[in-house]
Amino acid sequence: MKVNNIFSNIPVVQQEELFEVLIRNDAIRIERIISASQTYQPSDDWYDQEKDEWVIVLKGRAALSFENQPTIHLDEGDYINIPAHVRHKVSWVDPNNKTIWLAIHY
Amino acid sequence: MKVNNIFSNIPVVQQEELFEVLIRNDAIRIERIISASQTYQPSDDWYDQEKDEWVIVLKGRAALSFENQPTIHLDEGDYINIPAHVRHKVSWVDPNNKTIWLAIHY
Repeated sequence: MKVNNIFSNIPVVQQEELFEVLIRNDAIRIERIISASQTYQPSDDWYDQEKDEWVIVLKGRAALSFENQPTIHLDEGDYINIPAHVRHKVSWVDPNNKTIWLAIHY
Repeated sequence: MKVNNIFSNIPVVQQEELFEVLIRNDAIRIERIISASQTYQPSDDWYDQEKDEWVIVLKGRAALSFENQPTIHLDEGDYINIPAHVRHKVSWVDPNNKTIWLAIHY
């Protein structure tokens, strides 16, 4: 029975978001997502996902933009459920720290 | 699009463990679990679950005991995947703080 820590083994983040799959089966995917800090450049593209996504910010801060909806600011511990096909993107992250998310696609 | 915080609205915990379902469908159940601190009394009974469980300690500390396996200590950020029917129980929690877990049954 192996224990890992969600805040450990933080790699160098070369791109804006680094996705690491922790658990995957036919029904779900649990991911750790790390957003770059200083170098973060919001994408012009939207995420448009086939599955619902439940996501929580575990370290750092971020803003999520939605198509035709207000931007939402997330602090540590904040979570939100994003239904499938609700177009969204990460429009800002804490410039001083890497932001660590846990996402469950289901 | 509603934001909640996993560390907010912590109720009085009358029993040893308080389970709150955040998301549920046919495939998964996402729960916040709050373990009592001072009053915690480990159960004699094992959890024997139909589904796999991925669980992370978000605040506090705990120990998980397994049948015929070593006890595992969990600090903040530690996560573990418990396969279905692996019998386990919470054998200890931080006596000074409520321990907050996030569990995904899948």
